[in-house]
Amino acid sequence: MRERKPTSNSLARLKEQLGQISDLSNVASLLNWDQQVNMPPGGSEARAHHLSTVESLEHTLFVADETGQLLEEAAEEVISLPYESDDASLVRVAQREYEKMRRVPESLVTERAQATSRAFDAWQKARAESDFESFEPHLERVLELTIQYAEAIGYDEERYDALLDRYEPEMKTSQLIAVFEELKSGLIPLVEAITKQGQRIDDSLFKRRYPDQAQWDFGTLILEDIGFDFEHGRQDRSTHPFTASFSPLDVRLTTRVKPDRFQSALFGTIHEGGHALYDQGIHPDLIRTPLCTGASYGVHESQSRLWENLIARSRAFWSHYLPVLREFFPDQLTDVDVDTFYRAINRVQPSLIRVEADEVTYSLHIFLRFELEQALLNDELDVAHLPDAWNAKMEKYLGVVPPDDARGVLQDVHWSGGLFGYFPSYALGNLLAAQFYDKAFAEMPALPNQIGAGDLGPLLTWLREHIHQHGKKFTPAELVKRVTDEKMTAESFLTYLREKYSQIYELDTSR
Amino acid sequence: MRERKPTSNSLARLKEQLGQISDLSNVASLLNWDQQVNMPPGGSEARAHHLSTVESLEHTLFVADETGQLLEEAAEEVISLPYESDDASLVRVAQREYEKMRRVPESLVTERAQATSRAFDAWQKARAESDFESFEPHLERVLELTIQYAEAIGYDEERYDALLDRYEPEMKTSQLIAVFEELKSGLIPLVEAITKQGQRIDDSLFKRRYPDQAQWDFGTLILEDIGFDFEHGRQDRSTHPFTASFSPLDVRLTTRVKPDRFQSALFGTIHEGGHALYDQGIHPDLIRTPLCTGASYGVHESQSRLWENLIARSRAFWSHYLPVLREFFPDQLTDVDVDTFYRAINRVQPSLIRVEADEVTYSLHIFLRFELEQALLNDELDVAHLPDAWNAKMEKYLGVVPPDDARGVLQDVHWSGGLFGYFPSYALGNLLAAQFYDKAFAEMPALPNQIGAGDLGPLLTWLREHIHQHGKKFTPAELVKRVTDEKMTAESFLTYLREKYSQIYELDTSR
Repeated sequence: MRERKPTSNSLARLKEQLGQISDLSNVASLLNWDQQVNMPPGGSEARAHHLSTVESLEHTLFVADETGQLLEEAAEEVISLPYESDDASLVRVAQREYEKMRRVPESLVTERAQATSRAFDAWQKARAESDFESFEPHLERVLELTIQYAEAIGYDEERYDALLDRYEPEMKTSQLIAVFEELKSGLIPLVEAITKQGQRIDDSLFKRRYPDQAQWDFGTLILEDIGFDFEHGRQDRSTHPFTASFSPLDVRLTTRVKPDRFQSALFGTIHEGGHALYDQGIHPDLIRTPLCTGASYGVHESQSRLWENLIARSRAFWSHYLPVLREFFPDQLTDVDVDTFYRAINRVQPSLIRVEADEVTYSLHIFLRFELEQALLNDELDVAHLPDAWNAKMEKYLGVVPPDDARGVLQDVHWSGGLFGYFPSYALGNLLAAQFYDKAFAEMPALPNQIGAGDLGPLLTWLREHIHQHGKKFTPAELVKRVTDEKMTAESFLTYLREKYSQIYELDTSR
Repeated sequence: MRERKPTSNSLARLKEQLGQISDLSNVASLLNWDQQVNMPPGGSEARAHHLSTVESLEHTLFVADETGQLLEEAAEEVISLPYESDDASLVRVAQREYEKMRRVPESLVTERAQATSRAFDAWQKARAESDFESFEPHLERVLELTIQYAEAIGYDEERYDALLDRYEPEMKTSQLIAVFEELKSGLIPLVEAITKQGQRIDDSLFKRRYPDQAQWDFGTLILEDIGFDFEHGRQDRSTHPFTASFSPLDVRLTTRVKPDRFQSALFGTIHEGGHALYDQGIHPDLIRTPLCTGASYGVHESQSRLWENLIARSRAFWSHYLPVLREFFPDQLTDVDVDTFYRAINRVQPSLIRVEADEVTYSLHIFLRFELEQALLNDELDVAHLPDAWNAKMEKYLGVVPPDDARGVLQDVHWSGGLFGYFPSYALGNLLAAQFYDKAFAEMPALPNQIGAGDLGPLLTWLREHIHQHGKKFTPAELVKRVTDEKMTAESFLTYLREKYSQIYELDTSR
């Protein structure tokens, strides 16, 4: 798009090139945000064109020969800079991404975009009608193209690596399996113990109706308290809650509010708020670079889970906030004390739907999906047999069998979009949230007291300093090592769950 | 961005190229819409980058050699098609635009973008502080670059032609002067007669407070009644009302609502509604082409003025709608009858601010600006003397002198953006609205009765058929000729004003 001089300041020119690419990526996010928040129903066809043009220009600019040339020259310029410097990180991360993206043929990018667009429509219809067969050929096509994509990118150990790497840079499937096995071996006995204990928790308070506006207002109050900056962000309503960032200075989250689903908006808002705090906390120096995003999907999810679960499902948090909440809902909550509320929001119940799962059983939904993805990608499972395999694993991990495919294999959008390799990040988010929290607590012993006093600032400051500001400079493994001086492990998360739920469910702690 | 084959189907490839360019243009509109409607205050710097990248890519793609080559080849393909066919029009209009844009050096595009961006900030500050001197150097720079731009584009008769052409394709300044002289010679005596007559109109009903939500709801009702399609559009709030179109299937207007400024939202909504109906009425076959917009700024303005003034300031309209409006505002309007209301909304009062002017004196504000622009562009007036020249012309045309520059020469944003040549379109809109309405009335004598019965569908159908669907296929002169079989003239507008205001102000009709 611009003439290139043979010498001099390639880094600056690289930054301008990557800046334009970053702009286009953020513009695509805005197009998507607008589509889900504002767009009138009839606008979808035009929007598909807008998105396709912006994304295709972004891709074309990035994989251009010029980008490669600039990256090579810039690499020379930053060679003596420290590993963690902004410029060295920029070149390192962009180069890594460039090399992978260059391996994917343009035709495959286009074919995948078309196939996933059709598959998404087919999935929506199939889920509404619980009709897997109508979705099957689309999923087969998407899977086929995803395999081609993985082969184009390449891998050392196994095909899944090439996909996992999109979400967890540099992580190998073998490493994922190791940490999942650790988690599984602790989680399954815990779920069994809770289920066997059989104690029913009274969550009838959630059967009451909670007026929309008061839910919204309380959510806003919590967002302000956790440190979400409304000068540089906003909250809207959408069918599916999500967070979008167009720069750390313009971060937007959405919430779904329904009077008969109080927990959904409450914890959904805090969950998205956690994502939004990460996005707002990235250092301004990283704006308009490919580093201006989370380290990985798992690390991003760790921030949403940390605020949603470790903070907002803690007893300390509600000892401060229940009286506040009661002011918003005097009729609904007069007779509810902190203990009742705390137990109700932490009820464990193996269930059919991932997004409605409690924090204990949630990861089981991920094991199932991860195993099925691996089987599909390694040609060990046909798409045609996927529903049966799904149901068998539901029975095995959660002890429940979906009555239909809508509440089974068709429940998630991801596969229609070719997002194989994404699900593990959700479970990693659980682990990392606990690992990060443990470290924060070790460094700030007053943390639980602060939370109990509604003083959430110190935790955010700590997260900003250790995690948020770095954006994507480090791989998830590097970041975890820097922050906690440990490898990624399930230990913190398992300890957290055992302590919390042994108390709630009065389990035999000798286990 | 794409390989070019030497032969075969250049038209299809041209359409794909122009389609991407059109997408980028619509994306820029969305970025701007979002900035004014949703963007948190802190998001402006990132947004400036987004816009700059999208607009620069749009420009680069358009002026690329490839576009010129495709245009030439496509011109051969459409050579035997009728003038008004979509494809012939597409090539003709795009070629015309391409030739002009190619003459503007890239460096000038960049310099203008930077200078106008700085000038806009300076103007905002200068207006707030009524400090023209601080704005002066910025305006000088913008004027200088605008002159360079006009010289680069080129012209046959005079420099102003090159600027006017951006808003009124193919119109010459000499033609504009002719029609303005015609208008002026009728308008000035009419304003004098009204002022001399001195009859005070009671508009005290607008001193009352009108609750926000009821204003909004009535506006929505009117939008639905005039035929705005909410399936393919939406209404929002913004500081300055405007309409944005991302395709005829996604058109969005904004309204400003204040309890103490009832007329502002009421007529603002209908005004923007008129723009929006035009945008929604463009034929779907023109989507993703440069024809998918209005024929000119003046023609676009004719649609907003037609609905705002000729319809929504008519007695017939309010004979139907006042009872409806009274249901929304029972306390404010119980004692107001149609005559009182009709006279109040049509009060003529020479005043300082263009955007608040009534439909009679409005064009006087335009004459003044047009004459000053010409003088500036022809080096007959220094920027330093602009405030004095402004005030002198205000005295001459409107008989009022601004007490400060904020309410004088600094009131409009246009010049800070280098939009010299834009203002005349507002006055042309007044003329064309009346010309189009006269023709519609000649073909549909029942029109006033339909309006009096709140049946606004037939008028919209007529406008769609004769004007909206064609988008930018025709120049304004061609369109006016096709629709009315006349040249552009002030006659219809003057006759309309004389008849209406002679009655309201009980003027001596022998004049």
